[in-house]
Amino acid sequence: MYCPFWQWRTRGAMDEESQLNGLRPVKGVRIGAHTSIDELMTGLRSSAFGAGRLAKAVDIFTEMQTEETTKFMGVAGALVPAGMRTILAELIRDRYVDVVVTTGANLVHDIIEALGEHHYLIGSTSTGAYGDRDDAWLRTQGIDRIYDVLVHDEAFARLEAFLHGVFEHMSGRRYSIREFITVIGEHLSDPDSILRSAVECNVPVFCPAIADSMIGLHAWLYKQMGSLEVDAFDDLKELVELFSVAPRAGALILGGGVPKNFIFQAALVAPRPAGKDGLDYAIQITTSTPEDGSLSGATLEEAKSWGKVSEHAKTVTLYGDATVALPLIVAAVRGRLNR
Amino acid sequence: MYCPFWQWRTRGAMDEESQLNGLRPVKGVRIGAHTSIDELMTGLRSSAFGAGRLAKAVDIFTEMQTEETTKFMGVAGALVPAGMRTILAELIRDRYVDVVVTTGANLVHDIIEALGEHHYLIGSTSTGAYGDRDDAWLRTQGIDRIYDVLVHDEAFARLEAFLHGVFEHMSGRRYSIREFITVIGEHLSDPDSILRSAVECNVPVFCPAIADSMIGLHAWLYKQMGSLEVDAFDDLKELVELFSVAPRAGALILGGGVPKNFIFQAALVAPRPAGKDGLDYAIQITTSTPEDGSLSGATLEEAKSWGKVSEHAKTVTLYGDATVALPLIVAAVRGRLNR
Amino acid sequence: MYCPFWQWRTRGAMDEESQLNGLRPVKGVRIGAHTSIDELMTGLRSSAFGAGRLAKAVDIFTEMQTEETTKFMGVAGALVPAGMRTILAELIRDRYVDVVVTTGANLVHDIIEALGEHHYLIGSTSTGAYGDRDDAWLRTQGIDRIYDVLVHDEAFARLEAFLHGVFEHMSGRRYSIREFITVIGEHLSDPDSILRSAVECNVPVFCPAIADSMIGLHAWLYKQMGSLEVDAFDDLKELVELFSVAPRAGALILGGGVPKNFIFQAALVAPRPAGKDGLDYAIQITTSTPEDGSLSGATLEEAKSWGKVSEHAKTVTLYGDATVALPLIVAAVRGRLNR
Amino acid sequence: MYCPFWQWRTRGAMDEESQLNGLRPVKGVRIGAHTSIDELMTGLRSSAFGAGRLAKAVDIFTEMQTEETTKFMGVAGALVPAGMRTILAELIRDRYVDVVVTTGANLVHDIIEALGEHHYLIGSTSTGAYGDRDDAWLRTQGIDRIYDVLVHDEAFARLEAFLHGVFEHMSGRRYSIREFITVIGEHLSDPDSILRSAVECNVPVFCPAIADSMIGLHAWLYKQMGSLEVDAFDDLKELVELFSVAPRAGALILGGGVPKNFIFQAALVAPRPAGKDGLDYAIQITTSTPEDGSLSGATLEEAKSWGKVSEHAKTVTLYGDATVALPLIVAAVRGRLNR
Repeated sequence: MYCPFWQWRTRGAMDEESQLNGLRPVKGVRIGAHTSIDELMTGLRSSAFGAGRLAKAVDIFTEMQTEETTKFMGVAGALVPAGMRTILAELIRDRYVDVVVTTGANLVHDIIEALGEHHYLIGSTSTGAYGDRDDAWLRTQGIDRIYDVLVHDEAFARLEAFLHGVFEHMSGRRYSIREFITVIGEHLSDPDSILRSAVECNVPVFCPAIADSMIGLHAWLYKQMGSLEVDAFDDLKELVELFSVAPRAGALILGGGVPKNFIFQAALVAPRPAGKDGLDYAIQITTSTPEDGSLSGATLEEAKSWGKVSEHAKTVTLYGDATVALPLIVAAVRGRLNR
Repeated sequence: MYCPFWQWRTRGAMDEESQLNGLRPVKGVRIGAHTSIDELMTGLRSSAFGAGRLAKAVDIFTEMQTEETTKFMGVAGALVPAGMRTILAELIRDRYVDVVVTTGANLVHDIIEALGEHHYLIGSTSTGAYGDRDDAWLRTQGIDRIYDVLVHDEAFARLEAFLHGVFEHMSGRRYSIREFITVIGEHLSDPDSILRSAVECNVPVFCPAIADSMIGLHAWLYKQMGSLEVDAFDDLKELVELFSVAPRAGALILGGGVPKNFIFQAALVAPRPAGKDGLDYAIQITTSTPEDGSLSGATLEEAKSWGKVSEHAKTVTLYGDATVALPLIVAAVRGRLNR
Repeated sequence: MYCPFWQWRTRGAMDEESQLNGLRPVKGVRIGAHTSIDELMTGLRSSAFGAGRLAKAVDIFTEMQTEETTKFMGVAGALVPAGMRTILAELIRDRYVDVVVTTGANLVHDIIEALGEHHYLIGSTSTGAYGDRDDAWLRTQGIDRIYDVLVHDEAFARLEAFLHGVFEHMSGRRYSIREFITVIGEHLSDPDSILRSAVECNVPVFCPAIADSMIGLHAWLYKQMGSLEVDAFDDLKELVELFSVAPRAGALILGGGVPKNFIFQAALVAPRPAGKDGLDYAIQITTSTPEDGSLSGATLEEAKSWGKVSEHAKTVTLYGDATVALPLIVAAVRGRLNR
Repeated sequence: MYCPFWQWRTRGAMDEESQLNGLRPVKGVRIGAHTSIDELMTGLRSSAFGAGRLAKAVDIFTEMQTEETTKFMGVAGALVPAGMRTILAELIRDRYVDVVVTTGANLVHDIIEALGEHHYLIGSTSTGAYGDRDDAWLRTQGIDRIYDVLVHDEAFARLEAFLHGVFEHMSGRRYSIREFITVIGEHLSDPDSILRSAVECNVPVFCPAIADSMIGLHAWLYKQMGSLEVDAFDDLKELVELFSVAPRAGALILGGGVPKNFIFQAALVAPRPAGKDGLDYAIQITTSTPEDGSLSGATLEEAKSWGKVSEHAKTVTLYGDATVALPLIVAAVRGRLNR
């Protein structure tokens, strides 16, 4: 006589209903020819894994817009060479974000495009760097590669000329890095530029590791002859103050690295109104995972132990390529807010 | 006197225009409140990294629908517990795919939902398995966890009763795994079921590792008392024939594993019309990367060395969570084809 | 007057000593010219992240050898083409493992080497598949690529001739997959072969997805003309019985996939002595991470909710390439046990 | 009549011998109770995937020691909390490395341990942050978590007191970040400290993103009352000069991030002796992969297009956790050089 395995196994287990009571069931989404991005993201709320997290990211970023919140954005990874520049600039112009912390490289490539230079797509890296040519050949042609994107040395030559021109206009006074970046942005005119948009809209741009970029390199080269004084630490005051006066504080972290840590460090030390401790909202999109112990992949729960993120914060980590997730989140939130 | 670094460096480099001639420049996409998924994916064609690959996946999957193509789909990873079931079932019903190769687990969880049972969302795993309770506690409650999804032992008890009922109706003849699965599907009625949809629409479903699932387990338990004969190898004939008669062959590979290899193996050995060799289209969505040498993360270029993918195939690998990419690709292609 | 930030922050926090009492401090390891692998692994017990996990894997695998334990090993990923074949064969011969569950591909490549054929190293894949030649060119040369390893079609031709010769010697009776594999192993003579070693040492080898390999392919081709009957489900009985009689059960899981699931599934359903539930030891080495919800990357904690792993089991997951970790673990355990 | 598939397929393919001529065959390594780390790494030269790369890393790092080479080391990720501090300090003391570029966090945690404070191991994060307690609870206890490592706020309070004491001894002149770090190191006495070791051995330590660390935070807090001037860009001169005078230049990159980019940026711009261009040796150990386009995961081939790495450089990228690979490489190289 057959004794059903699962019936035997489940004996004594408490009633299913009571245990799973209050949990939402997974529900499939139906997709038609006219499903909007907003509808799709709403539908994915009842999915799990990455899909559910993407839907939650849309919900949190929407709430960050509708509640009175100071919105910090961290930008790491080569998002500008990848084509995310316009989206980022328009997030600033439409004030979806209020403060930007970025790597130097994204500023460099933003300026290069603002100067009329381009990044080029090779589509794939699977058969050598550029079809059947390799990276050593690219070197002989003055072409530099960023995964499946190429940029010519001429673009960097033009950046150099531009930056040295800007530096000549800078006064002899000591600048914070934020101020230094702002002066550069004032010399740009491209409305699709992240930096130009930020300067126009009074969105401060921080870049603590600016020395680790072509901008830092040219600042140093310039200093061999002229005067240019930029302080390594002055920015912290301004960033901490932005947190201190924030009614609520939210962060959209694209890619980890220094920008994530710099935002979280300020959240940790900033005195907040009574009862507040760290960020109220945090969205993290990263290809790093927690298992190697790196800050880039660290969970937002871990950040709560430090007080970087509030115990009661609304948070989500989406593991994956920000170039995939960012356009979707932006499109869904714009659709939802109709702006 | 300052000697510009990049000017010196680029001396002798060939003319920029000629070298990058023919390459498309990266272009940012503009996103508004009414941007459709199709428009967004079209815009991302001029982005790089994951964004560009996602756009290319949409283009290839669209062409697979408009050209006369036999469309194979590999389904690995816990896509059904994650909520992708309806999307997959409707892809079958609307004949976006013609042949399915899956893991046993996805069939198991598809049947569980077809029987009226549910998977439940816990939203996050960051503080233990279930809020502040751990996995050992879940065990005492008869609850089983799949990352951020829970399912109760009762669901498996119901699956067991259902399967044993089906097995009793099976004749004494030898079945191929595909035939065996089809009989199971004939006993389901839920139109959102992947398996029921496949049976209704004459879409064959292959599952070479069926033994490695609850279905295999119950088949074995049943065989202790009754007769049930399923051959391990018979399916290959049918799968190879599907390739042999395909005017063009395309694959949408969700997640690697056995389904990817089984489709590629058939593509390798199937005799094709003159000049053909392997798949004409291949889209791969995977969280595995090539660097560990695994088949799941192997590039589609590597597959060309084996003849699994045609030298002239249109291919793209999207690195990331299929639960994020699949809904977007499906929505964009449905929007583009207006069906 | 400066008010120290951390002094203010830590006010009211409970006494450090009491809270962190019982936790071991991180301690650096000192490495000299004569540090042995065993000593190094012992030293890394006081490290965190991957280093601490590697040390723990060595400790658990050692205990699995010294306690009376039935040791299951799962082998996924292209470990044989990568050069792990001798290590795996010797683990079997020296009875460090008692039961093997593998992918078909590892058996295929094991047999190829047993027949005197070779895999070849290209060292890197960074400039195309093979220096400046691409995968389409490899195809024209009859060379097949597995990441940075090449194998010639001739090796597969030889495999084919061998397998068909074996099949001709098989009787008309129905075989389980395990029995079928054993017959193949009996026709090999290479002592470095995993399969030959297993057959000689009465270590059963399971391969539930055998159809998804060149062996399955040739079994099917042979069946077009001759008789060969292999049952898809018969193996479960044997595997479950191995668990049922195990005084303790331990698993070394190399790489996830079907082998991991098949071992865990048997652990789930096997009746165990009173109070036992699932594996007593589990070591998992995988490049998959939990965040995508896949079984390959699933934590061993998650497995406890299913009863696949005992609540009180000693477990460790090492995230990384098994070709790096396996030789180290084996060397350390051999050093520690002096055999 | 059976027509062998592979025989048919391989017809026309060129002779196996000629094609694979010159390639080394994969060979298994034999591991005994007394196999040394050096022997094991030598044996793994004939393995592929991660194992072969690890062996190559050992070979390259050995050659960097025996050839006249300036050896740069990049240190990213939480290597000090993970227990790698002693290994790193001894690499400096024994002059296996000549120049260090690090994140601020590794300096912070190095100083904390130099002050007698500890990091603590929790062994696993699988059931909440600390056994069954979560991160919010840790916050109430003044305990901060770094994956599976804990550190108490008291440690940071002690760091703060120490740093403010150091700052008071600094003169009013402008410091480069390297000089600023050196002064801090001069106030330490722990011989196991990375920073103390570097100061004693005249190994310069660069930290371009120092503002993004507790050191930067306290420097800013101090500046609210006292005088402390640290220039953001001055370091580049010194780093570039170290490259310019290097007979050969080699880099051991642990973990990507700013340290990798800063070393590579200096390699790009430094004038080198005739015919030289970029690094002659590069070893990269990273959990990032190239597919997301990030600098951290970028291949060393890509770096050749920029001239950061020489066309003829000996290079290897090992994908994985540096806490696993570093101790092995160090042990093997120390064994090989017998020092």
